[in-house]
Parts: sequence; C-alpha cells; structure tokens
Amino acid sequence: MTHALDQLKSYLASITRLQQIGGLLSWDQQTMMPPKATNARAEQMATLESFIHNLFTSQKTAELLAKCESELTEADPDSDEVRLVRVTRRDYDQATKIPAALVEELARHQAQSHEVWVQARRENNFSLFAPALEKMFALTRQKAESLGYQHHPYDALIDLYEPGMTYNDTVALFDSLKPALVELVKNIAETGRQFDDSCLQGDFPIAKQHTFTQEVVQALGYDLTRGRQDPAPHPFCSGFSRDDVRITTRFDTHLLIKALFASIHEAGHAMYDQGTPEAYEATPLAGGASLGVHESQSRFWENMVGRSYAFCKWILPRLQEVFPDPFANLNALELYQAINRVQPSFIRVEADEVTYNLHILLRFELETQLLDGTLSVRDLPDAWNAKMQEYLGITPPNDALGCLQDIHWAEGLIGYFPTYTIGNLLSAQLREAMLQDLPNLETLIEQGEFSPILQWLRQHIHVYGRKFLPQELVIRATGKPLSAAPYLAYLQTKFKELYAFK
Amino acid sequence: MTHALDQLKSYLASITRLQQIGGLLSWDQQTMMPPKATNARAEQMATLESFIHNLFTSQKTAELLAKCESELTEADPDSDEVRLVRVTRRDYDQATKIPAALVEELARHQAQSHEVWVQARRENNFSLFAPALEKMFALTRQKAESLGYQHHPYDALIDLYEPGMTYNDTVALFDSLKPALVELVKNIAETGRQFDDSCLQGDFPIAKQHTFTQEVVQALGYDLTRGRQDPAPHPFCSGFSRDDVRITTRFDTHLLIKALFASIHEAGHAMYDQGTPEAYEATPLAGGASLGVHESQSRFWENMVGRSYAFCKWILPRLQEVFPDPFANLNALELYQAINRVQPSFIRVEADEVTYNLHILLRFELETQLLDGTLSVRDLPDAWNAKMQEYLGITPPNDALGCLQDIHWAEGLIGYFPTYTIGNLLSAQLREAMLQDLPNLETLIEQGEFSPILQWLRQHIHVYGRKFLPQELVIRATGKPLSAAPYLAYLQTKFKELYAFK
Repeated sequence: MTHALDQLKSYLASITRLQQIGGLLSWDQQTMMPPKATNARAEQMATLESFIHNLFTSQKTAELLAKCESELTEADPDSDEVRLVRVTRRDYDQATKIPAALVEELARHQAQSHEVWVQARRENNFSLFAPALEKMFALTRQKAESLGYQHHPYDALIDLYEPGMTYNDTVALFDSLKPALVELVKNIAETGRQFDDSCLQGDFPIAKQHTFTQEVVQALGYDLTRGRQDPAPHPFCSGFSRDDVRITTRFDTHLLIKALFASIHEAGHAMYDQGTPEAYEATPLAGGASLGVHESQSRFWENMVGRSYAFCKWILPRLQEVFPDPFANLNALELYQAINRVQPSFIRVEADEVTYNLHILLRFELETQLLDGTLSVRDLPDAWNAKMQEYLGITPPNDALGCLQDIHWAEGLIGYFPTYTIGNLLSAQLREAMLQDLPNLETLIEQGEFSPILQWLRQHIHVYGRKFLPQELVIRATGKPLSAAPYLAYLQTKFKELYAFK
Repeated sequence: MTHALDQLKSYLASITRLQQIGGLLSWDQQTMMPPKATNARAEQMATLESFIHNLFTSQKTAELLAKCESELTEADPDSDEVRLVRVTRRDYDQATKIPAALVEELARHQAQSHEVWVQARRENNFSLFAPALEKMFALTRQKAESLGYQHHPYDALIDLYEPGMTYNDTVALFDSLKPALVELVKNIAETGRQFDDSCLQGDFPIAKQHTFTQEVVQALGYDLTRGRQDPAPHPFCSGFSRDDVRITTRFDTHLLIKALFASIHEAGHAMYDQGTPEAYEATPLAGGASLGVHESQSRFWENMVGRSYAFCKWILPRLQEVFPDPFANLNALELYQAINRVQPSFIRVEADEVTYNLHILLRFELETQLLDGTLSVRDLPDAWNAKMQEYLGITPPNDALGCLQDIHWAEGLIGYFPTYTIGNLLSAQLREAMLQDLPNLETLIEQGEFSPILQWLRQHIHVYGRKFLPQELVIRATGKPLSAAPYLAYLQTKFKELYAFK
C-alpha cells in the first residue's frame, strides 16, 4: 500500500465511523427515541452531517485522492486499492459537484415538501402538493445540470442510486419487460381463477409474531449476534458496520404474513451488509454495490425463496405449531396459492410479483416526463390514472390511492424507482445462475438448508462490497449483463402453473 | 449578548451536540447493541471523542473564551453570560491541563485495568489486580499534579466531580458524620430488633415489573414523552438533551423492590436533566451542577420520598393490585419496616440508608491514603477489612466481597466516591428546606401528589443547571452550606422510631 493510500484510508475511516454514527441516530429516531426529542435529534443530525460533509469535501480529500490516483496508475485495475480510489473519486465528485447553495435549498425544500405531502395525502388533495412538487422537479433539474450527464438529465439522477446506469439503459430494460408483463396480467385475469387469501387471516399477538419472524430470519442466515429486529412504523434495514446491521418490522395483528415477508425482505438486505468482507470495514468499499443490487438481495429472499412452493412446505409445519389458528387447516399448496395471489391493485407496496414492476414502470415514465417537461405537474393525476388503466386495467378512485401514495418524489428521490425493478430482475437472474451451482435449490429450501444459498450470494455478490459497478458485478456473478429474460421466464413458469393457463 | 459570546455559544453548541451523540452511542451499547458490534462501537466512540476533544481544546475555543472574558468584565457576575463563560473556562482548563500523552496512557491503562479487575473479582484474587491498581494510582497522582492543587493532590481529583470541593472539606464532612453514624449502627444493633424482609419476595414477571415501575416513575414526574425505560445489566440514567433522558433498570424476578427503588433512583437523576431550562439546551450550562448534586436528586426520590412511611401507604394498594402475591398480606407499616431494615453488610450497593455512608467513608479514607502513599496497594485488603470491622462490625470473608467489589478505582475514578455521600447529605438538607415551603410533605406523598415536590426541586435546583458551583447552589436552595446535620437528624428520627430506642 502506498503512503498516500494509507493516509487516504485512515482519513476516510474516520469519516466512515461518523457516517455509521449517523446511521445509529436515524435508527434510534425511528425505533427508540421519545417523541419530544425530535428537535434535539434534528440538531444532532445536522451538526454531525455538517462535520462529515466538511471533512469529506475538504481540500485534504482532494489532495490525497489526486496523489493516490497518480501513484496507482500502474496498479492492477481490479485490485482493491485501485477500486477504493475509484469509488472515492465517484463519491467525492458527487459530493462536490452540486453547489452548496443548491444542496441547502434542496434540503430545506425537502423538509417542507415532505410536510405538505403528508397533509395532501391525508386530505386527498393533490393541488395542495402540486406547487411543492413542481419546485422539487425544478430543483432536481438544477441538480442534474450540476452533476452533468451525457444524453438525458435523468442519467445524472439514476447514477446516484445505480452507478453507471443511464436513462437509455432503463428504457431498454422496461421495453423488454412491459409487453410480456401486461400480457401476463391479462392471461391471469382471463383464467377467471382467483385464490382465496382470507385463509391467512387470524389473531396474531405481536410478541409471538416478533419471536416467530425472528426465528425465521435467523434460520435463513441473518446473524442476530450482529443484528437485531425491532418493531417500527416502517420496515427498514440499517447497518452501522458489518457487525451491527439491524432490521425493523411492522406488525399487523390480523395478518402475520405481512410481518413475515417484510422481515424476510429486510433480512435479505441485512445479510448483504453482514456479508461485507472484514477488510472493507470502515472503507468506501463497505456496503452494497447499488440500491438495485441491494434490492436484489431482499427480493431474492422474499420472492425467490420466500414465495416459493418449497418454502411453503418448509414453513407450514412451523406456522402450524405456533399459530394453529388459522394454519392448522391449510396445506402447503393453499398457502402457496394464497401468498401468490395476483390482483391488480392501487398501492405499489402491496402489489404482487407480477404487477409490481408495472407500478414502477408507470413511475419511471412519469418522472422522466416531469423532469424533461413533457408532462406538467398539474396533469400528473390524469396521466397517472390513464397509465394505471392501461397497464393494470384499474383506475384509482382518488389521488391518495394514486399519485399521492409514495413518499419518494416529495423527498426529492427522483431516479430512484427503477432500482426496485432492477432488484427484481437481478434476483431472478441470480436465481438462474445459482441453479447452475445448486440444481437442488428447491430441495434445499424445502429442507430449510439455507446456508448454501447464502454462501452462494456471499461468494458471488457480498464479497465484493462496493468494489465493482453494478454492471460489472452482475456479469461476474451471472456471466451476462442484466436483462429481463430470467425474471420473465421465472414469472411465466410460476404463474402459468399457479393459474393453469397455456 | 456580545459578538464573541455569540460565536462561543454557537461553537460550543456544535460540540455539545456531538457530546450528546456520544451519550446515545453509549446508551445504545448498554441496552440495544448486538454483542459482536463491540469493536465497531469502540472505533465509533474513539473517532467521535477525538473530534470532540480536538474541537474543544482548539485554539479557537481559547481565543473566543479570552475575548468573552475581557468583554464581560463589567457584566453582572451572576448573569447567565458570565457564568457560561466561567463554566467553559473550568471545562477548558481541565481538558487542556493534562498532557495528551498522559490522557492517552490513562485511557489505555483504564481499559487494561478494567479487564484485570473483572478477572480478579471473578477469581477472588486481589494480587492479580494489585499491579494495575498501583499503576492507576501512580498515573492518577500525575494527573493531579498536572491539574494542580492548593493543599492535597486529592483536591484536584474531587474537583473533577464536585467542582469547588476540597480534601479538607470532605474530611470535615465525614468527621461530623462518622461518630454519629457508628453510634446509630450500634444503637440499632443493641435493640436486638430486626425486620423480616422475606415478605417482599415473590414471583414477578419482568414485563409486569417493567410496566409497574414505569407507571410509578411517571407518577413521580418522570416525563416519558421525553424519556424511556429499558432493561439493562446495570441501572443508569443517560441524557442526550433535556428532551431525551433515558433510564435503565435491572429486574430481579424474585424481588420487585430492587427494580422499584432502582427505577425511582434513576428517575430522580432523569427528572433533574429533564428540568434543565430550555434556554440552556446545548450550552455548557445544561446538566447537573455536580455528581453530588445529581445524586441528591436520585437519593431524594429514592429515600426521602420512596422509603418514607407515607410512600408505603401510597404505593401499597397499587402493589396489591398488580402483585397480590406477596403484597396482599402486607400492611403499610410492615412494608415500611421491610424496606428500611438496617443490617451491616459487605456490599456497598446493597447497603441501607444508615450504613451506606460508612462504606463511602471507608473508600474515601483508603483512596486518599493510597494516593498520598501512606497506604501501599498490597496492604489494601487488610486495611479494608480492618475498617469494615471498625465501622460496621463485620469482616468480609474474601476480597470479592471486600476491596474488589467496586469498579471505580479500576476505571480511574478516584475522588468520585464522596459524591455519593454528598448526595445523601444534600437530599436530607433539601428535604429540610422543602418542609419550610411544603409542611404537608408527608400528606402530599401519601396522596400521590408529587408534582409540588418536583416543582420545588425544579425551582430551587433544576432551573440553575450548571450555572452555579454546588456550594453556591446549596446555599441558594437551602439557605446554608452543606452539612451533615439535617441528614443525621433525619436518620435519627426515622430509625429511633423504627427500631424503638431512645
């Protein structure tokens, strides 16, 4: 290791430790903090973030980075050293390209816009939110201009969440996905067949749900000596070092299945963070390659494993033991059918595997149009509803169930939605590749032998941390670039069988 | 406000916010953190502390402080402004006087010495701990020399915990306490009377204890919208702003009374921190005047309120409702007697109100001798046991129950013990003063009307934060300097009646 690299790593380690602390502040706020501490916590966060920002965007970072870059020109381009410097350069450029005044204005507007959105959604009043949304897109356009892009301002935005991804890449992905998905939804509807999922309802005390879901995620491989699970209003995963990765779950006393799949999903994220190599701890190489790759892990465990017939066979006796009512009367096929019911619906986060990505496509199309000005904010509700009708055959009765449902745009997260679909596609592509090495995958799941599965993900994804761009990582892990084909094949096989159509 | 003061306050606010964050890291470590995150947390703490130390001991603090001092020479010496600067000067001098190399050596030795102490106590082997303790006292002597003192090196040490207090003051306090306490212990023993506290034992599920103790401390005035209570291996109170002051409790499934009094004690600390004036938030004036004053609040609620006959009358019906077994068979007098049983015992933290301060006296005498070299570490066990025999009439059967029981010296907390006794004395002196304003104090307690009591403490103690030195604060609150008289009068009245002697 060169002297400059040594210095850079040590300097960045301090910054990373402070960032980890910021993660804890935020986790605590959402799980433990007393309600009236909101202001104090905001001050603590702002103070810490300002120190972190100043340290990272300082002249010192710039100088060390430049030194390392010149010292490493001859080094193996795939070495950890070169990649660490490259990742830091990306982070540094992103952190410094947006003018401080714009960063500040965005932060301020984000807080206001969030509040207005909460009210607008509660009152089902889009016109209340429209001016804030308009300003958010205007500021975001400025942000894209500051960051710079080759072809489309969206390039600069999606790159923040999915490094290396462009607008054209995303369009191409959705183009290969959309017709097949729309057709699949239609095929299923035409069978006239529907599964009854009322059999999943019951009376589930929260403490018992907590213990049960915790045992399940532990069985999958989530290491509770390096994590913990708590109830929270929203399920999320938050890591402050590879040895402290926590998940939260929201419990519904009438529907265990919600907390179960939320737990599995978040544990999927958590196992990825726990799988960060020890050598990457407190370096810029720690963490996930992108939001999409992160989502591929949560979706893999939630859907490829959790919503499989094999998993139903494994978990049913466990469910029956702890919750005889209602599970004693169910067989594995009925459970499998009930948790895989396909039904076009208004709310994205409640969507099934087939319709989910159409919700994302709709958001992607609308946010790019809002960004480049081909759609104006006041026309958003109509455009939203028209697309819902086109893709899913349903029209939201109001905007709260339509274009006001998601928090993302109110928070300035524009360019973020596609990462959900990228995660879905990659989860199936990983499954396809995994089946080459573990042809008995379904048997492993049915027998609760999850460790070879986790091992495979560790070896092909987790071990690389943020070292490679998602595009490089996908090729390393699966032998080919990301495509919609494995996901479509997976869906078609699964749902043709479930809904019995040709 | 002068311009320099404005700048100083804003600079110190950032530092204080970082300190509050450090408090959260430590709370989380003791309550929530997964076991394997220890190393990551240590790195996070060390990084944060090093930033805080560098910021606070910087040239910038020195310059702003000097400017403020010269600008405020004409200002009211009791104004918040002057006192804020004075408190900061104290803190700054303390933080800068000890050479960095010694701070580092102390920190390193503290970690080692802590580990050795844990092992020595577990194995009941003092000779294992002796070299570490010897080094700790040697380093502490150097620390005292760096800090400087007038008469005795102990002056510099106790001043860290009890600003303005000296060795001679402490000797004088104990001199006026010791003979009366020893006599009181003797008087009680000679009555031959003893209360049966086995009636307090039962089977108390932890969740029910948690709810019950939480309701009790809430009734006393602990604001749970600005705090929370969690189980932890050791009871403690930890505040990260006046709006976020958390307590922990240790639960014993067979003895509810332990968690009850621990909760009341910690809530006493917490109510003090919650009572910090809003204007002091994130300034050096926030928090308690000293450890002794802090302890006076916890002891006041625990003993002056919690161990009173009136409190027994108030709490008994509540105990009987939630825990009919064993409390249904008890009357208030039996409860009062059982929780006030006086019995010389080996372990300080389990001692009753009468013997407790003799445990502290013993530690004070020994630590000053170890410090000035009149006692050598190898003779500590004998000296300890001799004093136990002299003051309490019992001799520990081993060092684990003797001089190895406390963590303080292993952690370098030398000069700290007297603050416990100061807290006890002050709690009684506050009660005496409070009775002038609230002559119906016992009735208020019996009726569960705790709010005038808290109000009195808010008005006479809490509202001042760290503004005044403890000695000034005690005179403001009680009209006279701290003395042992009110505490002795309180004990004599209470225990003469309880044990029926003249």
